[in-house]
Amino acid sequence: MALNKNAVTGMRDIMPREMILRDYVIGLIKETYKSFGYTPIETPVVESLGNLLSKQGGDNEKLIFKVLKRGEKLKIAEAKTEDDLADSGLRYDLTVPLVRYFSAHNGELPKPFKALQVGPVFRADRPQKGRFRQFYQCDIDILGEGSSAAEIDLLLATSTLLGRLGFSGFILHINDRRLLKAMAAYCGIGPERCDEAFITWDKMDKIGLDGVMKEMAENGFSAETVAAYETLSGALMNAQEPLKALAELLAGQEGVAAYTAGLETIIRSVEEAASVPFTVRFDPTLVRGMSYYTGPIFELELADFGSAAGGGGRYDEMVGKFIGQQVPACGISIGFERLITILMDQDYQVPGAPRKKAYLLEKNLPEEQALAVRRQAAQERAEGLTVLVSPMIKNKKFQKEQLAAEGYTEIEEVYNK
Amino acid sequence: MALNKNAVTGMRDIMPREMILRDYVIGLIKETYKSFGYTPIETPVVESLGNLLSKQGGDNEKLIFKVLKRGEKLKIAEAKTEDDLADSGLRYDLTVPLVRYFSAHNGELPKPFKALQVGPVFRADRPQKGRFRQFYQCDIDILGEGSSAAEIDLLLATSTLLGRLGFSGFILHINDRRLLKAMAAYCGIGPERCDEAFITWDKMDKIGLDGVMKEMAENGFSAETVAAYETLSGALMNAQEPLKALAELLAGQEGVAAYTAGLETIIRSVEEAASVPFTVRFDPTLVRGMSYYTGPIFELELADFGSAAGGGGRYDEMVGKFIGQQVPACGISIGFERLITILMDQDYQVPGAPRKKAYLLEKNLPEEQALAVRRQAAQERAEGLTVLVSPMIKNKKFQKEQLAAEGYTEIEEVYNK
Repeated sequence: MALNKNAVTGMRDIMPREMILRDYVIGLIKETYKSFGYTPIETPVVESLGNLLSKQGGDNEKLIFKVLKRGEKLKIAEAKTEDDLADSGLRYDLTVPLVRYFSAHNGELPKPFKALQVGPVFRADRPQKGRFRQFYQCDIDILGEGSSAAEIDLLLATSTLLGRLGFSGFILHINDRRLLKAMAAYCGIGPERCDEAFITWDKMDKIGLDGVMKEMAENGFSAETVAAYETLSGALMNAQEPLKALAELLAGQEGVAAYTAGLETIIRSVEEAASVPFTVRFDPTLVRGMSYYTGPIFELELADFGSAAGGGGRYDEMVGKFIGQQVPACGISIGFERLITILMDQDYQVPGAPRKKAYLLEKNLPEEQALAVRRQAAQERAEGLTVLVSPMIKNKKFQKEQLAAEGYTEIEEVYNK
Repeated sequence: MALNKNAVTGMRDIMPREMILRDYVIGLIKETYKSFGYTPIETPVVESLGNLLSKQGGDNEKLIFKVLKRGEKLKIAEAKTEDDLADSGLRYDLTVPLVRYFSAHNGELPKPFKALQVGPVFRADRPQKGRFRQFYQCDIDILGEGSSAAEIDLLLATSTLLGRLGFSGFILHINDRRLLKAMAAYCGIGPERCDEAFITWDKMDKIGLDGVMKEMAENGFSAETVAAYETLSGALMNAQEPLKALAELLAGQEGVAAYTAGLETIIRSVEEAASVPFTVRFDPTLVRGMSYYTGPIFELELADFGSAAGGGGRYDEMVGKFIGQQVPACGISIGFERLITILMDQDYQVPGAPRKKAYLLEKNLPEEQALAVRRQAAQERAEGLTVLVSPMIKNKKFQKEQLAAEGYTEIEEVYNK
């Protein structure tokens, strides 16, 4: 096979300027989340296919890069399906591996367990601008805490982080999967068709109420159901306090009062304790794709950029599938790549970058002189400078221009004395 | 397929205590190398198989995890060989991806280009203690610098890093591939059998001179060749200054004087400019496995642990295979996982870790009181503390013991006033 200069299709190389920013942001992420008591962990990028295909990952399960079996396990001539060729694959998110990790190491972990993960995930999406097949995710999760304290902690930690990156003007959209189900019941939709209805409801901000009602009808929901949804939506849109309005409309259903009270606690706590200004909106159209969510769900929007900066929710049943015992769980994933893109576009300057100095050594500089420069450089590095010691190239002017572009503010040429 | 709690065979999860250490060490690696002017970059973990199988990787090419083709490209029924099923795989080192990266982005990069990479690589080695199929490598490389200044810079930067991690007592073993070839010529071994002879010579520290001579004879090298090797080895072992002795023995061969002078410059510079004490030894038995090396090669040993801490060398021909133009190149890879194991065994305490404080909130604490604690915690975090706010669990004694084990020195219980 021929040599190929390019990264594999859909993946990309990270250039120095972006990499310096990524290193800084990852450092800040880890520092901030650690200061809230989150514990860093790491899992392999390869997971067993049984776990990846356990119906937790929604559409992402269709986008898995599978890893070819090796040695005697690989029987190409007898292979009929992909399952015969692969039993592991690259992870498409950090949640499935986290739950597996927790299941394996539960006994050794603090309770509740506050996990912090940063790392690459892989999805064989159609290549398109700004979307890559390898990208970083950054998640925090709390396992073993069933109360709203978990959601509040996740959201306060994340808003603190975003504030430290210079972002402000957050809008937190919040909803609850159980309220969505109660809305479905109100419309006469049974549990078996909930996910289907939610996919349509999720499109409200793109196609509007008319579009949603049209799609519901096309999908075979009855005229009564569509009409009930219209009533519900109208009531919520016109309400001063939609969460209260919803609680009243659905008051007949069990649990609704508790679910809305839970959301109210989260909303008030985040509004009042966040270290950066925050707008929290109950958003009855918020659905989020993954079917594993069981309670509150949320999305964080950067108002100035019209862009999601992260999202998450509660998934109380996923751990139970691994260990046969329910463990409440809740997590948030920040849109790491999106944040990096915004910061790059802003030409964000990493704070605290050291002063940069370069020594250019004339060709054939006597060894003793070169050594003296290297000792001097070591001294200056110990004082906190970045110091480059490099042979002078033929085109010295070009070399100095390039160093200036890299941020070297002092350039010293060293000649044979 | 069933759910599986364990990491895939041969890979492992990283537990919190180790992860905190890894984060710290990676931070120190990046900070130290950046202070020498190395630039961080990143490539995808997936590479095209054409690059991975380009005969640069030695035996590692047999250990590649291949990634199954997807969609229409995957024709299982027609597949005869692995090449029909996969055209990409997981990288087994960071050097092949670096050279590809440099080939693709050459025009945008500083010259010479000093690259810094830290990331996971993958090898389908037989699982064994302390060896995993996913592990981190940490490399620095200089591309575009043909003089010894490159080797000197790589070695000074790496010794500075290891010194900052508290290591001392380094032994740097150094040799030159071209001197190895001159030794082979001295013994009457032609270029075509050099690699084969080197594999045997490399075993000197394990099987001794007698073992090496026996294996050479078994491999069909002539009695004259084996006798010449014995003479050469004897002369080098007994020499006060083996590098000078070698220069004299091989004086008739072109280039030898320049190669030994180059090594002498590297050795003197490292001995005299390193910021930590350093022993440098010319080691004529040092071979290093990868066939891509073309000049000086080196291995760094931690004397107190009888353990290699890294290695590298010059590979001036590899970039040319991608871009058809020779670009001198030289790199060093530190044994990241080995260093972590040593530090874990030493119970290394990460310096500068913040003071840790925990608030345990009584169940059903009034919201206003919980908010006051969260505000107080935010204040304390801004002052540099790690502050955990967590609901109190039923077994409070257990919870407090666990927090103490995690390093929380202040634990405050908060009750309904």
